[in-house]
Amino acid sequence: VNTLEAAQTGELSFLAHPRYKPLLATTQASAVLVRRDAVHQEFLEAEHRPQLLFVEHPHAAFYQAVRYFFPESKAKAGFRHPTAVIADTAQIHASAWIGANTFIGEHCSIGAHTRLYANVVCYDHTEIGANCIIHAGTVLGSDGFGFLEKPDDSFEKIPQLGNVIIEDDVEIGANCTIDRAVLGSTRIGRGVKLDNLIHVAHNVVIGEHTAIAAQTGISGSTTIGARNRVAGQVGFVGHITTADDITVFAQSGVSKSLRHKGTYFGTPAKPHHIKVREEVATRQLAAAFQELRALRAEIERLKKNL
Amino acid sequence: VNTLEAAQTGELSFLAHPRYKPLLATTQASAVLVRRDAVHQEFLEAEHRPQLLFVEHPHAAFYQAVRYFFPESKAKAGFRHPTAVIADTAQIHASAWIGANTFIGEHCSIGAHTRLYANVVCYDHTEIGANCIIHAGTVLGSDGFGFLEKPDDSFEKIPQLGNVIIEDDVEIGANCTIDRAVLGSTRIGRGVKLDNLIHVAHNVVIGEHTAIAAQTGISGSTTIGARNRVAGQVGFVGHITTADDITVFAQSGVSKSLRHKGTYFGTPAKPHHIKVREEVATRQLAAAFQELRALRAEIERLKKNL
Amino acid sequence: VNTLEAAQTGELSFLAHPRYKPLLATTQASAVLVRRDAVHQEFLEAEHRPQLLFVEHPHAAFYQAVRYFFPESKAKAGFRHPTAVIADTAQIHASAWIGANTFIGEHCSIGAHTRLYANVVCYDHTEIGANCIIHAGTVLGSDGFGFLEKPDDSFEKIPQLGNVIIEDDVEIGANCTIDRAVLGSTRIGRGVKLDNLIHVAHNVVIGEHTAIAAQTGISGSTTIGARNRVAGQVGFVGHITTADDITVFAQSGVSKSLRHKGTYFGTPAKPHHIKVREEVATRQLAAAFQELRALRAEIERLKKNL
Repeated sequence: VNTLEAAQTGELSFLAHPRYKPLLATTQASAVLVRRDAVHQEFLEAEHRPQLLFVEHPHAAFYQAVRYFFPESKAKAGFRHPTAVIADTAQIHASAWIGANTFIGEHCSIGAHTRLYANVVCYDHTEIGANCIIHAGTVLGSDGFGFLEKPDDSFEKIPQLGNVIIEDDVEIGANCTIDRAVLGSTRIGRGVKLDNLIHVAHNVVIGEHTAIAAQTGISGSTTIGARNRVAGQVGFVGHITTADDITVFAQSGVSKSLRHKGTYFGTPAKPHHIKVREEVATRQLAAAFQELRALRAEIERLKKNL
Repeated sequence: VNTLEAAQTGELSFLAHPRYKPLLATTQASAVLVRRDAVHQEFLEAEHRPQLLFVEHPHAAFYQAVRYFFPESKAKAGFRHPTAVIADTAQIHASAWIGANTFIGEHCSIGAHTRLYANVVCYDHTEIGANCIIHAGTVLGSDGFGFLEKPDDSFEKIPQLGNVIIEDDVEIGANCTIDRAVLGSTRIGRGVKLDNLIHVAHNVVIGEHTAIAAQTGISGSTTIGARNRVAGQVGFVGHITTADDITVFAQSGVSKSLRHKGTYFGTPAKPHHIKVREEVATRQLAAAFQELRALRAEIERLKKNL
Repeated sequence: VNTLEAAQTGELSFLAHPRYKPLLATTQASAVLVRRDAVHQEFLEAEHRPQLLFVEHPHAAFYQAVRYFFPESKAKAGFRHPTAVIADTAQIHASAWIGANTFIGEHCSIGAHTRLYANVVCYDHTEIGANCIIHAGTVLGSDGFGFLEKPDDSFEKIPQLGNVIIEDDVEIGANCTIDRAVLGSTRIGRGVKLDNLIHVAHNVVIGEHTAIAAQTGISGSTTIGARNRVAGQVGFVGHITTADDITVFAQSGVSKSLRHKGTYFGTPAKPHHIKVREEVATRQLAAAFQELRALRAEIERLKKNL
């Protein structure tokens, strides 16, 4: 299995996006998964072409084939790397997979078939559900960023007594940080997918099946709805809520609750079409200023003529 | 101890923000810390209500109570996890707490009652004061990002010979990176609080009692003043200075020294009220363009009439 | 060797930037590397001044001197920290240097004189060339962020079967994440320099001698050209290309391919001079709105007069 560009004779590939159609004629792949309507008749009649396998969803079909050729190793279920540090009071399901140099603190629990890669850190009382994947270097349950200012300008630490709960079927990328709650739980909902280097502050709740791209940060006590799609490097201020089915574009700064399903962009984040309109207007400013000067000149001329 | 929302009978809670006042009537908490003037007379006379404890600062009083019920474990002072790797030449105070898989290089020093959580890395010559907390995965003393361009477009590494100094009472979140100085020291001042995933470049100095939120980055040789409040995802260019008592809003890009106490926002960062004014103006652009076209039409009409 | 400001008697310093010229008169350094034309005649005749060593490139000459006084330790070539976890099938060059708590998975390869600092994680099949430096906490080869949405709103993981290839002479900062390719390789070109906390997604290619500052993120399948200079906190969307010799300013959001050599800035990123012009125009908006109102008033007056 391989991409159209890299495939050699004997390999299977796929065409999912029209952009890559020219590669159909040049690929060395022996067989290609493709939609019937994506191929012209004349190509079908070409002499030298890969075998075409017509399917409805070439991308999904390809990954089915991949899984067939590279079945996920079940052999390692229950693996504990000898360098993993696991507290006596932690409850690890027999089928969980625990990588090297991983640290699992007191009273943690880890569900069935969940996999922690190398150097993951779970502070005390972290709870991880079943079928989760936590990538290397991610820290779960570190103290939330909470301080009281004292009259002498120094800070007093607010004790962080809550924990982190990761529900089932969650995948978290590498070097993320998810802080424990002050009280109660920071909660990552079922089926959520987090990319790398994401920051989730104390008492945040992320709804089911939400996906968030790399380097996004969510401030304390914010609640993200279900099925949100958040692009990379987005920031959410604290104590706000997003509705279900929200999409946020990259580098946006969400400063208020987003109460309506839709697509948002910008700092501060606003409905995408409004942001686009403002961006277009900004580009026209030089011309507008010129028109403004032209109008001024016209008026002065008119006044003189009168 | 618990929040108004989650508290059960027998638990203590607090009301600090008017927003949560309705919860006073529904909470299951047995006692609530609250300001006297935050409660109406009629509520005082209600039959079913939690015991009210009147205090000046409910939030602070609550955390005092929390500390009473959950005293910070002193028992573990002097703890060294057996997997911690500590160089022979490192000087660790007898009362310091060193977590699992932590690496402490040559000639490092760590002060009294300081706590390093799992997987912290201290490169050689890092100095950490007393009463500090360094969260999991944070790297102190990695090489600064310094290169000379050579005529053949390749880079020559500038040796990074300085170190990192963390003064007393500092807390640093998870997965931060603080680079050593080229020469001299990168210095985090007394009482500074850093959130997660923060980048501090070589030769940066951060003044006392400054607090910086997650994912902010400070470029090389920049000096941040005392008592600054920096929100998340802010960037500072190199070789600039901020005055004391500066506040910077989230996602700002600070491109010049900020010489006057105040609040800044935007990329490039400017005084907050100016940024707000520009944001408001930008929102009115569509209307302004329409007015511009209307004026043009009026003038053409006037000219024709003349 | 030391800076002009910090140097003591007996130390060597340098003057590279005119800004620091006043320090020449006050430094305690015994000798200073400086350009001949940077010093006035009268200073040369001053009685109390450091010995001046005239060179063409004081900065480069200084670092040559630094290397002379602090030669890079060759002694440790071949070092393997006893806590390093190295798979049997990994091929590590005899001269490579492997730090504490480092994890090197199956079928990895690491070239001559390459150095991995503490807590680096290499997933299976990662290939690192010669003379590379990988700083602490960096994760190479974690799964790319790829999922198919299923009709029930849950995600199906796309198997990530490729790897990461780091070519020769690359330096990668602390706590970075570089994801493996879906198929094929994520590739960091020869001589590339990455700062801390950088995210590189699956199937990204970075061209030779490109340098990227901290907290920048590059989305999947994007190709960065050779000799690019990318500042901090920049974001690149996926599936785009940048030409060679591109410069991108801090916090920019690159949303389209950049096909022409040059300097870019903003979200969305545009040629720097255009962004600056828009920024200037935005600052003048308040004045422009006032002029707009003035013109309206003039026209109304003219109409009344007619």
